[in-house]
Amino acid sequence: MSEPESGRAGAPTGGGPSGPARPTIEIVLPGDGSAPIKRSAGESVRVEAIVLADGHDLIDCAVLYREPGGRWQSEPMARVGADRWAGSFRPETLGRYEYTVEAWIDRFGTWLAAAEKRLAANVLTPVHLQAGAALVSEAAASQRPELEAATATILRNVPGPAIEAARAVAARMRESQPRGPIARQEPPREVQVERGRARQGAWYELFPRSCGPAGEHGTFADAEAWLPYIASMGFDILYLPPIHPIGVTHRKGRNNSTAAEPGEPGSPWAIGSADGGHDAVNPELGTLADFRRFVARAAEHGLEVAMDMAFQCSPDHPWISQHPAWFSHLPDGSLAYAENPPKRYEDIVPLNFESADWRALWVALRDIVLYWADGGIRIFRVDNPHTKPFGFWEWLIREVQGVHPDAIFLAEAFTRPEMMRRLAMAGFSQSYTYFTWKNSATEILEFMAELQAPQMRDYLRPNLWPNTPDILHEYLQQGGRTAFALRFLLAATLGANYGIYGPAFELCESQAATPGSEEYLDSEKYQLRSWDVTKSDSLRPLITRVNEIRRAHPALLDDRSLIFCKTSSSQLLAYVKGGEEDSERVLTVVNLDLGKVTTGWVEVPDCGEEPPDGKVLLAGGTLDWQGARASVSLDDPQIPAIIV
Amino acid sequence: MSEPESGRAGAPTGGGPSGPARPTIEIVLPGDGSAPIKRSAGESVRVEAIVLADGHDLIDCAVLYREPGGRWQSEPMARVGADRWAGSFRPETLGRYEYTVEAWIDRFGTWLAAAEKRLAANVLTPVHLQAGAALVSEAAASQRPELEAATATILRNVPGPAIEAARAVAARMRESQPRGPIARQEPPREVQVERGRARQGAWYELFPRSCGPAGEHGTFADAEAWLPYIASMGFDILYLPPIHPIGVTHRKGRNNSTAAEPGEPGSPWAIGSADGGHDAVNPELGTLADFRRFVARAAEHGLEVAMDMAFQCSPDHPWISQHPAWFSHLPDGSLAYAENPPKRYEDIVPLNFESADWRALWVALRDIVLYWADGGIRIFRVDNPHTKPFGFWEWLIREVQGVHPDAIFLAEAFTRPEMMRRLAMAGFSQSYTYFTWKNSATEILEFMAELQAPQMRDYLRPNLWPNTPDILHEYLQQGGRTAFALRFLLAATLGANYGIYGPAFELCESQAATPGSEEYLDSEKYQLRSWDVTKSDSLRPLITRVNEIRRAHPALLDDRSLIFCKTSSSQLLAYVKGGEEDSERVLTVVNLDLGKVTTGWVEVPDCGEEPPDGKVLLAGGTLDWQGARASVSLDDPQIPAIIV
Repeated sequence: MSEPESGRAGAPTGGGPSGPARPTIEIVLPGDGSAPIKRSAGESVRVEAIVLADGHDLIDCAVLYREPGGRWQSEPMARVGADRWAGSFRPETLGRYEYTVEAWIDRFGTWLAAAEKRLAANVLTPVHLQAGAALVSEAAASQRPELEAATATILRNVPGPAIEAARAVAARMRESQPRGPIARQEPPREVQVERGRARQGAWYELFPRSCGPAGEHGTFADAEAWLPYIASMGFDILYLPPIHPIGVTHRKGRNNSTAAEPGEPGSPWAIGSADGGHDAVNPELGTLADFRRFVARAAEHGLEVAMDMAFQCSPDHPWISQHPAWFSHLPDGSLAYAENPPKRYEDIVPLNFESADWRALWVALRDIVLYWADGGIRIFRVDNPHTKPFGFWEWLIREVQGVHPDAIFLAEAFTRPEMMRRLAMAGFSQSYTYFTWKNSATEILEFMAELQAPQMRDYLRPNLWPNTPDILHEYLQQGGRTAFALRFLLAATLGANYGIYGPAFELCESQAATPGSEEYLDSEKYQLRSWDVTKSDSLRPLITRVNEIRRAHPALLDDRSLIFCKTSSSQLLAYVKGGEEDSERVLTVVNLDLGKVTTGWVEVPDCGEEPPDGKVLLAGGTLDWQGARASVSLDDPQIPAIIV
Repeated sequence: MSEPESGRAGAPTGGGPSGPARPTIEIVLPGDGSAPIKRSAGESVRVEAIVLADGHDLIDCAVLYREPGGRWQSEPMARVGADRWAGSFRPETLGRYEYTVEAWIDRFGTWLAAAEKRLAANVLTPVHLQAGAALVSEAAASQRPELEAATATILRNVPGPAIEAARAVAARMRESQPRGPIARQEPPREVQVERGRARQGAWYELFPRSCGPAGEHGTFADAEAWLPYIASMGFDILYLPPIHPIGVTHRKGRNNSTAAEPGEPGSPWAIGSADGGHDAVNPELGTLADFRRFVARAAEHGLEVAMDMAFQCSPDHPWISQHPAWFSHLPDGSLAYAENPPKRYEDIVPLNFESADWRALWVALRDIVLYWADGGIRIFRVDNPHTKPFGFWEWLIREVQGVHPDAIFLAEAFTRPEMMRRLAMAGFSQSYTYFTWKNSATEILEFMAELQAPQMRDYLRPNLWPNTPDILHEYLQQGGRTAFALRFLLAATLGANYGIYGPAFELCESQAATPGSEEYLDSEKYQLRSWDVTKSDSLRPLITRVNEIRRAHPALLDDRSLIFCKTSSSQLLAYVKGGEEDSERVLTVVNLDLGKVTTGWVEVPDCGEEPPDGKVLLAGGTLDWQGARASVSLDDPQIPAIIV
């Protein structure tokens, strides 16, 4: 054999005086580390990691975390599997937390385990006790006098009492002993901590312009009169479509006709006119002061106003002339409208995010949000976020939440699941979902499972809407009042966040623009509507009751605990929420067979002999407990559900 | 509303003249990005990623890769799902490759798709054609004259021929058009590219000291005489237990007795004596020159010699006195032996990887490997790697492969699955597995599924051993010759890498040290054995035939294509390998019912009407095809399998 040539290989780099840290760490929960996970303040973050070190030494682990701008803090982890550890922390401050996992060799624990074996085998010698005493004494030197007594006892060399003394200080030693080289998973991960409202709330969408006397354009002042009605139903958020001046050029008329008649109000999403752009208020609704008063009055009624952020312009928007570089132009210099040939959407011009002046555009859009946020609005429903770059949203949300950590953003993207997930990962607090199109038991089960999947649940907070001004599902068009009641019940009990577009919803408005269309006939998007909310068959009582139940039962305001139950029929959907962190559990049983009586049974998992406490919260039929199983009969077309 | 305060938020940083790249990239395969994946030279790396950009523009993606020290190269990716792209490259050079994914907006494709829609709707105007022509002309300017003709045709403003010309250059435009801001997943990931032998091979473990005349200590010269026998059975690798001087202090005697009688040879894993340590050869086996000649002779027979690397010392190892800091000592200064109270292993002293002199220790151990590698040994079976730090192995394997890229390391760790996975992720080319303890159909199915799981298959290459000098499973103790034949057949057809410890295996040695023990009686670990390999009931013919089949059928030398088949009975295990990249498929059907006749059927998935070509390679019974299903009857206790 030849001699090795020298200098071909290097010496090890890094590592402390006793070598590099031996444990290896792989965080497995929550999320996958590629984006900040989401929590609301006070909600715990449970971290699980696979941690292991060579050989047979015991290890110990901790979750490290720090609040925005704060110092690293530590929570112990416990072993939950052969090589799996779990620990948690509870962020309380709004902003971006960081967290990671640390691990080290538990020298004292390793020594004690070996000493216990030696004691049992009667081979525990003074020299072995000395090794343990040295560890305790080292820890004592740094801080704790009571450890000195233990050192002395161990050194007294009477095996039984020595080990007893060692056992007695084991918990203290876990905290106090020098940790040696510490392995740390780098880089740390982020938690986007938002206020509780980001996690749960009942939304109500309203066009203030329909709040006036019949035939007249409503104002903020008119809409004020509606606040008691909306508040009485127990909603938390009042969301208004864009309140800005509406363009005149190519203004859309009723039922989306391409030319508006004189006096028609146009689509609120065609933003900008001679009266101003995204920082102005449509004079037909009132003044900025009127809007301000409206927001304040809503707050007095317990309603927080959410604004619509639609980053697009009518051809009359001031930016069109002030910042031509922010828009796309064809080779002949003409403005590029939105279009999907042969359709053209000439009342709206998209922004060009690939503009040479993109930095100024990003800043201007952020400043629009900051302008309204500074004025007191902290919830933004963002229109079509999937047509603007992910990087833009990541930046904007971080910027706005950096100034206003209580700002909440709802992503209105009805598109491919991966797109919705990426938007959530970019920082949106909540997301619209496909709930609107999920009607059968199988569809709902599959869809909710998708939302609960590990790669989704920590990033995307769903907001379930049975209708929107854009979507009147065939199920509602054909199912009558029972369908509306059912879809509402599902949204409000399946989702911690849900919303309805009213009064169209509670009045069971079901007329489509044309057969096969999901557009409303005489859609409020293009015209004023006059609603009679005093109608006797309004869903108002049911909505009021369910929102009351939601507020009284935090289980319903938590998406993470949802579990579906076995039932006897595909027309019977049943699910439990709650049960985590000492909250009570709430069972909802829904009759999917529109207008028919459904009987059968449901089985509540993991409740042993003890079903949910049985107090009926909403009685759309009867329910009889037989151990973990209940026979149910749902026979009320007004209330196609039981909540217990 | 108040005015926003200025200076609270920043301007966007980064991004090019038209903004940051819009696509977002998430690599989903192979591996999870936390460690280098493994491939052998010539084996392809298929990369899958979720890639999406805002809006409706088309995107395009490429796999970027570079060989060790090379430049980035690119392979196109194809869309394989709504937002999923796949592409591959084939590393040919040994060493560490890097790879990642790039994505950009496909401007020409986006324009062409819109123009096609416009053409269909008859609204394709000159100004739209100009936009497309500008893209083609821009690409033409940089390189391709033929694109200029297309530019002219498109500009001629006759919609039909214009779009035809555009379609004709679409493929070229995919390569040629300027790509604008390119998104790239950072950091790149690594592929550890090793030679083909790392991927597949048949191992034979032999104690050369048992190769001498009966009762005498065998030498390398004696072992040379065995090479034709081992080579004739078709093995690829001849693995020798440690060949170094064996300690005298506390030497173990036959059947692991704590005191050796004079003349007993001791355990080869108690390394080091006055004759030297890990870089010396046991004089009883011969000289370094003898070993060298043995290795060369083995190579002439097509056998590559693998050495054992057991990083531990006998109390007589030169390092004990030369480097006391490399060993642990008790508070009284005495050497800490390996022990598991009440058991003590006084013939072996572990190395202390937390030594203050750990850097020198790491270098010394690496230099031992380099010493033997420089001398021509390139396969190392590493003893108990799980008792040394992961970081040490990561460093050592990288260092050694940096000098000898053809070095192969087999990890001998029979321990917790996560530990085995982490060792593989640290760089071990292959790993021993739990195969030895998996005997029933269910156990084998579950175990192979575990090895094929996404988080395993790209990191850990299994090496299946039905026996080792440490493990004589009860199944072999009690199952007789048929059990040996069966376990061999399973190992050799399920695993691209497998090995046996012989001649104990082919001679069906089944005597355990004590009832309930997995140790061999009169184990070669502690004494010489004399084997009669000419015995008529040796498994030699079966082993020879199966190794022949393996060499003739690359399907069996690939772990990634394994699929289990439905069968009529739990005693009938059937599986297909191959079928990828044009290789033929091989079906193996095994009778698990020891010594009994088993009849039934097997169903080959995805073969439509065309079963594997039906040429019987190994006939342990009969097989009749009926479409995708075959009736089988396995009735030969000598050969409990059919290979087709």
